[in-house]
Amino acid sequence: MVKVLSVNLGSSTLKWRLFSMPEEQQIATGLVDFFDNTKAEITVKFGDQKKTRSFDHQLSLKDAITTLMQELKTLNLVSDLHEIAGVGHRVVAGGELFKESVVITPKVLQQIDALGEFAPLHNHLEATGIQQFLDQMPWATHVAVFDSAFHQTLTPENFLYGIPYAYYQKYGVRKYGAHGTSVRYVTKRAEKVLHQPLADLRLIVMHLGAGSSITAVEGGKSLDTSMGFTPLDGVMMNTRSGQIDVSVVPYLIKKLNLKNADELITILNQKSGLLGVSGISDDQRELKKVAAAKPQAKLALDMFANRVIKFVGSYIALMNGVDALIFTGGVGENSAEMRRQIMAAFSYVGATIDATKNETAGKEVDISAADALVKTWVIPTNEELMIARDVYAKL
Amino acid sequence: MVKVLSVNLGSSTLKWRLFSMPEEQQIATGLVDFFDNTKAEITVKFGDQKKTRSFDHQLSLKDAITTLMQELKTLNLVSDLHEIAGVGHRVVAGGELFKESVVITPKVLQQIDALGEFAPLHNHLEATGIQQFLDQMPWATHVAVFDSAFHQTLTPENFLYGIPYAYYQKYGVRKYGAHGTSVRYVTKRAEKVLHQPLADLRLIVMHLGAGSSITAVEGGKSLDTSMGFTPLDGVMMNTRSGQIDVSVVPYLIKKLNLKNADELITILNQKSGLLGVSGISDDQRELKKVAAAKPQAKLALDMFANRVIKFVGSYIALMNGVDALIFTGGVGENSAEMRRQIMAAFSYVGATIDATKNETAGKEVDISAADALVKTWVIPTNEELMIARDVYAKL
Repeated sequence: MVKVLSVNLGSSTLKWRLFSMPEEQQIATGLVDFFDNTKAEITVKFGDQKKTRSFDHQLSLKDAITTLMQELKTLNLVSDLHEIAGVGHRVVAGGELFKESVVITPKVLQQIDALGEFAPLHNHLEATGIQQFLDQMPWATHVAVFDSAFHQTLTPENFLYGIPYAYYQKYGVRKYGAHGTSVRYVTKRAEKVLHQPLADLRLIVMHLGAGSSITAVEGGKSLDTSMGFTPLDGVMMNTRSGQIDVSVVPYLIKKLNLKNADELITILNQKSGLLGVSGISDDQRELKKVAAAKPQAKLALDMFANRVIKFVGSYIALMNGVDALIFTGGVGENSAEMRRQIMAAFSYVGATIDATKNETAGKEVDISAADALVKTWVIPTNEELMIARDVYAKL
Repeated sequence: MVKVLSVNLGSSTLKWRLFSMPEEQQIATGLVDFFDNTKAEITVKFGDQKKTRSFDHQLSLKDAITTLMQELKTLNLVSDLHEIAGVGHRVVAGGELFKESVVITPKVLQQIDALGEFAPLHNHLEATGIQQFLDQMPWATHVAVFDSAFHQTLTPENFLYGIPYAYYQKYGVRKYGAHGTSVRYVTKRAEKVLHQPLADLRLIVMHLGAGSSITAVEGGKSLDTSMGFTPLDGVMMNTRSGQIDVSVVPYLIKKLNLKNADELITILNQKSGLLGVSGISDDQRELKKVAAAKPQAKLALDMFANRVIKFVGSYIALMNGVDALIFTGGVGENSAEMRRQIMAAFSYVGATIDATKNETAGKEVDISAADALVKTWVIPTNEELMIARDVYAKL
């Protein structure tokens, strides 16, 4: 029995979970919130308890890790920090280099940093964070788990864009996808709950949350996915536009008097999607509350459903049919209303849901109608556990 | 009985057809080729004859029209030019202003010119051309027929992008679509050959040619279409990329040392698609010839089929099923191989084709398998006749 820490470092938060492996038992979970470097808060949840330490000053990542380690000892969640034999680090972009999780060596760390070209907001930060953990927990096996790795099985006609081939060869312009660790976890669960080997299954996983992606999983492998070169592409999201006509870029640069394309990409990442269309909120729960009174709120939700429906439909065609549809992610797991709206489109393949069963949130449930030809499931994702499993496999 | 001229003015050619209406009989057709302003050629085809006049110098549009009119008289295709009671002009971008064909007044002409903002390569040129025809044939009723008009029935959740709503309100950023006149013609034919009222039909029209688009037609109305703000969006085409992750724009601007986004859009319009991926040709017939020996040629064709399949699949979901699939356009009408490759994906909705019936080119044929649940037809398009009909309706 060993302890494994799953780490997910974002631009202003460090999310973590501590597992006991191989029992896959969650010991504790928590969050370091850096609050844009003006103050900070370290939260540890375990059992039904929650402990918070607040700081009224900036907290370095190094100090945050030290403090977190102390807390784990103080709270008796570990008796000795060396019990943590492995640390798994979520990394957004693995490019074509990383087709699966790897033990982090100095060379790997360098490669992760260099891949920052594809994910400027993520990889460099992640590499810096990993170095901090390596420094402070040198006894542990550190493993990088890539969000893009599961999608490295995409076939060329799906991952290539219709642009000069040299741009792929020289500059790596292709679809990489994201949410791979989530989709991989959900795919494994699907095999279990559907009682069928993955080899025989055509699945479509709808990971719907703040960021959303749709993935076609054929024979257990990712065949196509809606996110692209970056996580901006695909379905409309909370603040991200998803697919738009690329000709809009020079047109809006002129209309909005922007300096360059980067400025527009920032708008498309941060001010668009549900937030941009509604002008009200990026949160589906908020939009739902006001949808009856505010037409743009309803429109934003309708557009979200519309985009999901079209991607799912395109993947049903790509696989010439589908065996099961799976909802996961914050919205996918919790919004019965959005699931209902999406599933209204799929009776043509016999994928119908039971209205009563669909009234569920955050639970692993078969919501298919009794006579459904294609199963529909809600399967809560657990990227952190998937990361811990990958770490445990390397110990 | 009157004569109606259909005019399609491009950047280096003027294509035309002369019809006798209402019999819809084609009297003659032809082309003025301006060859990038170094020489020119006027071709007139009628019956089984073809007459060509060549010029070893630049030919103005005005002179081209005068010469063409003389030829029509000389060849006895009209006995008096005043027999041509109407002229229909194809216009690419009608914005939200033109939901149907209109008689051209000075105000309309100004509006067409102003819409050039959405189609910089087209509308200004078209407005100039229309003025020339107005000057030289003042007795005729001139009608503008818009490529985008048929798609003005798109619903907001389909025509809006996931961007700040103000960009639609202030700057008109939305999906306009193209190929509308072709899709409208084909839709009318479909009603006839399927012996069902359009109100009951969910159609998907695949207009596949040098430019390609897929349109979902529900109850006779365009519900969604693959081209977007401009004809660059949607499926991959001969030289156009179709959909790509918009984040690629700033990335490639840097990598390719481009001045601005416009330069990249030019590459995506002119050097991409089948041409860019194959590195060989933008012509599917050429690519097919070398596909066995050249992997990138095969890849380009596979990607084209892949994109069509995914759009068709998305529209089947959007309409929760489909009643008929229709191929049109140069490739759609003539490439049995591409039709076969695309239709291999749709047995899940019972849309299967008969291999023998599919061996057809340029003819209106039901290619469905005997037991197909969803009909598949090849319907040659005739935008020029559709334009002539619109003109005749205004006389």
